[in-house]
Amino acid sequence: MIWFNSDYSEGAHPEVLQKLMETNLVQTPGYGEDVYCMQAAKLIQKACGTEGVDVHFLVGGTQTNTTVIAAALRPYQGVIAAASGHINVHESGAIEATGHKVISLPGKDGKLTARQIADYVDWQANDESVEHIVQPKMVYISNPTELGTLYSKEELTEISRVCRQREVWLYLDGARLGYGLACRENDLTLPDLAQLCDVFYIGGTKVGALFGEAVVIGAEELKKDFRYHMKQRGGRLAKGRLLGLQFGVLFEDDLYFKISKHAAVLAEQIKDAFVEMGLNRFIDSPTNQQFAVLPDSVCKKLREKFEYEYWQRMDETHSAVRFCTSWATREEDVKALIEELKRLLAEEERG
Amino acid sequence: MIWFNSDYSEGAHPEVLQKLMETNLVQTPGYGEDVYCMQAAKLIQKACGTEGVDVHFLVGGTQTNTTVIAAALRPYQGVIAAASGHINVHESGAIEATGHKVISLPGKDGKLTARQIADYVDWQANDESVEHIVQPKMVYISNPTELGTLYSKEELTEISRVCRQREVWLYLDGARLGYGLACRENDLTLPDLAQLCDVFYIGGTKVGALFGEAVVIGAEELKKDFRYHMKQRGGRLAKGRLLGLQFGVLFEDDLYFKISKHAAVLAEQIKDAFVEMGLNRFIDSPTNQQFAVLPDSVCKKLREKFEYEYWQRMDETHSAVRFCTSWATREEDVKALIEELKRLLAEEERG
Amino acid sequence: MIWFNSDYSEGAHPEVLQKLMETNLVQTPGYGEDVYCMQAAKLIQKACGTEGVDVHFLVGGTQTNTTVIAAALRPYQGVIAAASGHINVHESGAIEATGHKVISLPGKDGKLTARQIADYVDWQANDESVEHIVQPKMVYISNPTELGTLYSKEELTEISRVCRQREVWLYLDGARLGYGLACRENDLTLPDLAQLCDVFYIGGTKVGALFGEAVVIGAEELKKDFRYHMKQRGGRLAKGRLLGLQFGVLFEDDLYFKISKHAAVLAEQIKDAFVEMGLNRFIDSPTNQQFAVLPDSVCKKLREKFEYEYWQRMDETHSAVRFCTSWATREEDVKALIEELKRLLAEEERG
Amino acid sequence: MIWFNSDYSEGAHPEVLQKLMETNLVQTPGYGEDVYCMQAAKLIQKACGTEGVDVHFLVGGTQTNTTVIAAALRPYQGVIAAASGHINVHESGAIEATGHKVISLPGKDGKLTARQIADYVDWQANDESVEHIVQPKMVYISNPTELGTLYSKEELTEISRVCRQREVWLYLDGARLGYGLACRENDLTLPDLAQLCDVFYIGGTKVGALFGEAVVIGAEELKKDFRYHMKQRGGRLAKGRLLGLQFGVLFEDDLYFKISKHAAVLAEQIKDAFVEMGLNRFIDSPTNQQFAVLPDSVCKKLREKFEYEYWQRMDETHSAVRFCTSWATREEDVKALIEELKRLLAEEERG
Repeated sequence: MIWFNSDYSEGAHPEVLQKLMETNLVQTPGYGEDVYCMQAAKLIQKACGTEGVDVHFLVGGTQTNTTVIAAALRPYQGVIAAASGHINVHESGAIEATGHKVISLPGKDGKLTARQIADYVDWQANDESVEHIVQPKMVYISNPTELGTLYSKEELTEISRVCRQREVWLYLDGARLGYGLACRENDLTLPDLAQLCDVFYIGGTKVGALFGEAVVIGAEELKKDFRYHMKQRGGRLAKGRLLGLQFGVLFEDDLYFKISKHAAVLAEQIKDAFVEMGLNRFIDSPTNQQFAVLPDSVCKKLREKFEYEYWQRMDETHSAVRFCTSWATREEDVKALIEELKRLLAEEERG
Repeated sequence: MIWFNSDYSEGAHPEVLQKLMETNLVQTPGYGEDVYCMQAAKLIQKACGTEGVDVHFLVGGTQTNTTVIAAALRPYQGVIAAASGHINVHESGAIEATGHKVISLPGKDGKLTARQIADYVDWQANDESVEHIVQPKMVYISNPTELGTLYSKEELTEISRVCRQREVWLYLDGARLGYGLACRENDLTLPDLAQLCDVFYIGGTKVGALFGEAVVIGAEELKKDFRYHMKQRGGRLAKGRLLGLQFGVLFEDDLYFKISKHAAVLAEQIKDAFVEMGLNRFIDSPTNQQFAVLPDSVCKKLREKFEYEYWQRMDETHSAVRFCTSWATREEDVKALIEELKRLLAEEERG
Repeated sequence: MIWFNSDYSEGAHPEVLQKLMETNLVQTPGYGEDVYCMQAAKLIQKACGTEGVDVHFLVGGTQTNTTVIAAALRPYQGVIAAASGHINVHESGAIEATGHKVISLPGKDGKLTARQIADYVDWQANDESVEHIVQPKMVYISNPTELGTLYSKEELTEISRVCRQREVWLYLDGARLGYGLACRENDLTLPDLAQLCDVFYIGGTKVGALFGEAVVIGAEELKKDFRYHMKQRGGRLAKGRLLGLQFGVLFEDDLYFKISKHAAVLAEQIKDAFVEMGLNRFIDSPTNQQFAVLPDSVCKKLREKFEYEYWQRMDETHSAVRFCTSWATREEDVKALIEELKRLLAEEERG
Repeated sequence: MIWFNSDYSEGAHPEVLQKLMETNLVQTPGYGEDVYCMQAAKLIQKACGTEGVDVHFLVGGTQTNTTVIAAALRPYQGVIAAASGHINVHESGAIEATGHKVISLPGKDGKLTARQIADYVDWQANDESVEHIVQPKMVYISNPTELGTLYSKEELTEISRVCRQREVWLYLDGARLGYGLACRENDLTLPDLAQLCDVFYIGGTKVGALFGEAVVIGAEELKKDFRYHMKQRGGRLAKGRLLGLQFGVLFEDDLYFKISKHAAVLAEQIKDAFVEMGLNRFIDSPTNQQFAVLPDSVCKKLREKFEYEYWQRMDETHSAVRFCTSWATREEDVKALIEELKRLLAEEERG
């Protein structure tokens, strides 16, 4: 069985593991106050083109979203997200558990527009019952989104502008950031993100690390006392060095970008094959998540050899499914997947 | 200036105030453990046709919704509501502040359907990532809704059925319940509600009391330790007797229903006039909230004498506005409103 | 049966009720945005000797404490209170329900000292694990305390000083403030409180109103968006005018102080009688709560005619009990209580 | 510099790392639903002597405490802990952030007694204002405690008995459990814990793992929907297999117990040396945390070569400090520490 269902099916990039082996018996202070975390933070600042950002390391995505959002908001404030946003659907109410409303707006292909955001914020601010309505004080976007789509530099710039005009924080969830930055269509860079967002995170779990997300905070007001928040939300790893070590490897010599590129290239092979096969792709994703609408019979047979993520029913006989590539995906597996799909679809056509 | 903007512009029905005067210096225990609360609870049980319900008195609607919902749910559970539901838009995130997601579904005229509820609950229960999605464990409906519409007995029976099949609590917000029960179109009774809902509340604030809402709990599991929840949410009034005294007056000799009928009759006069004037009514409400779409110029002039609630912009020159009647509305004021509107519309037509 | 168990056994001062009657059918906007609330706020500002304070009206004490504290703190911050403080023992965890730790320090007669506060705040700030310890950011004191004791002007000044040095908010719970200000030993005034505290509340529920507490906010940072917090915590009364009307009456012509004085004088009569009878007074309270240690047999017989608050067991045959006076207490009832106690104690002595 | 300040200064036991290397590119499902987690859970069930317990894996201690406690309590319920308990002092208010009061009772050497617990629970249950006081519904104890002390089987049995009589959950924090079970004085076993506690956790972070804690749930009521709680509190690791793999190694062939024994033996060497040197040991700990009261001058000089944990000031010239051993401590380092201490103390004596 070959797994394409997610981008977290394996352990870590071998260089990451190697580093953990080499440093295993070195003694360091705990809770991220070690030299490895400091070095990794500096590497990330460098990659972001500024020393004006704080960098903190957390273990996973839900924890990161919870900590960042709860740290930024006052009790009566909420966070705007696309209806398909991870915090709105797939975190078991973690944000609400900290007391905050996720204000969901209908997304287009998983994305929000600057106009939507401006309209919503202005509507609340000008309503007669303004104090009876949750105040939108943060915008959460994912890039790539949960549907694999990307924000362009122009789109993000415009979102940033409407947020700053209205004193609303802009937070970007980069669980799959590497796979976004590495794809052909992308025109954003880490320095762009550091400049346009108030806070964002660089995902490690899905991009080469055993686990770990690096939070990058640009806004002064959000920097204050962030470690208290991390501790309170269960997010200060005792052996914090493990996070520093991993991100140190990933951001030394651009490993993070190289392995992301690997996944992006393989995703493009899948995408090109889908186009060639004439498949309805459900959504046109430029990143490591590729979607296709398949006959249910093909889905079923495919699962004898390949694992994918079931996405949703399309009609009585077809379903949308997702295939992910990652730093660990092997080119021969991609080829095998494509061949098997072609074979099954041909078989299907013949009836 | 005559106010039609809301149904809480005055104090209390004179009989209610009279009772407070008469009993003012009587000494009682605090926190709702007095004889007046006991008597009022019995009267409400009687009106509900069963002694199998617990009755508790709280001060206001947001407090009541917060207390009931937080008492019923475990941390990972949420409450389904129509997007226009009061808890979703007008309580400053009070429900989320207790840690729970308000799962908003698109309403039709402010109402949810049994089908919508069933589909959503079944979707979550059957999703592969079930434990990553907030578990819907309560349905919140308002009756009348925030748009003045009503659930029929058939609709409520069907909602109750799908909820019970799925072990989901059904909670009905009756902030304006009297005005619903008293209107022509209504076919529901208090005993119906007591049977079909797991918990509901009978609104006093908008129906004759200075303040106060009576929570009626039918489901055994929800009865346990409810007073702890009330205290924790700031909802045990020290002089709890004030609530018992007011509901005692309202439910003695059907005063609650009589004064609701008064408001309903006047609302029908307004509605009939709107129809006669050929106004677009924005929504067809059978209860004490009446909506109309008016030219902005008429809105402006009307406000010289009459206060209404601005609802929303309809087009560049028209807006939807709301007029409320209540137990306190005077028939002559309704007549004056209708006349003024006719005059202004005629004036407008003449240009 | 005559009730001395609490100071909230009756309704409201007759002048308060009279005002509610007179204004009953006047129409006003809701949620405290009416002229009566504005007038009452002005009267309270005047009584506080400054227009630099914001005044908001809430319904009850637990709601007020919850709203003020949750509005002032960030998630990782806590509030210091005496172990006997109301928020620490008698609010069913309302403060914790908003996410904040009540940091309890041992009180002396229900009071905290400036030294205790300074030591605790300094200890946390200087601990190596500072970010692992809840940051104390507010001090909560009650005046009079839950044991009837009072802070002197010197004590409060010193507490205020250590708080301001350390950027810790000082919040004073004045549920029984009138009874403190009116007693012989008191040397504090409302202007003192407005100057020394960052926020405090003037209790109405126990001092002449049907219900209601007036929050007075001096610190600029705490003023921002307070009404959002009120709404979120269920504390914006729809007919907010009821609060404005009541406080308007209480602060017109010093009624609040006059009726407090009445209770203080009667409390002193009880206290003098206890001293005369040679009773152990459990705690030496100068305010409207008077404590005495009585033989259990006397307790039991006393309850045939008088209700008191059982406080705690002292030894196998004695208990501490509490008697409260209030604006509503009748002098003849105090005399009757004293006589009955004398009679029972004499009877007891004779065996 | 040699570090004795904590038991989490290094990475993982080499066998644990080896396993991570070997399995690195194996593909598995995420979120702990893989075969390694299943196997590890079975091994732990076996070590606990029962299949009647559920086993879940979380990343760290604060996260584990938060998740277990929030999953067990209703909003108005609290958890009893010794004042020195980790949840009361060193988790930045993580428990309160989920809405629950930590009810701190004075501990004796970091421990609670069955009597204390019974008295407190009975006091609350019988108070007249019972519903105004947080209901104690869980007891939290650490074993070993934060001061290195241990509960005996007799003590734990008695605590378990009083808890069950009163329907109060018993939860044991085993962050350092291995070091407790392995020490000379201990008479408790894992099967004892599984029988006496409703839920406990076996610490991995401090005992051989890179990170990870294994929650063992015995009480049926606490098992339900635990994974929802884990997700909501940010505690479902995407690559959950990492936890299963580590605990699998630790509980295969008793590695967990062997490496704990190693730390225990070295701790005893330190303890014996302290006794021999005639040092005041601050507290008499039988486990891997050893305390000593040292002259400040010795503390200062010692820090040139050895890191320890500063505990607290004892008098003007002495401080209590803590030394920890762990699975990773080298015997030669212990010897070096003892020699250096002897040398410094002798030097100090000579003046």
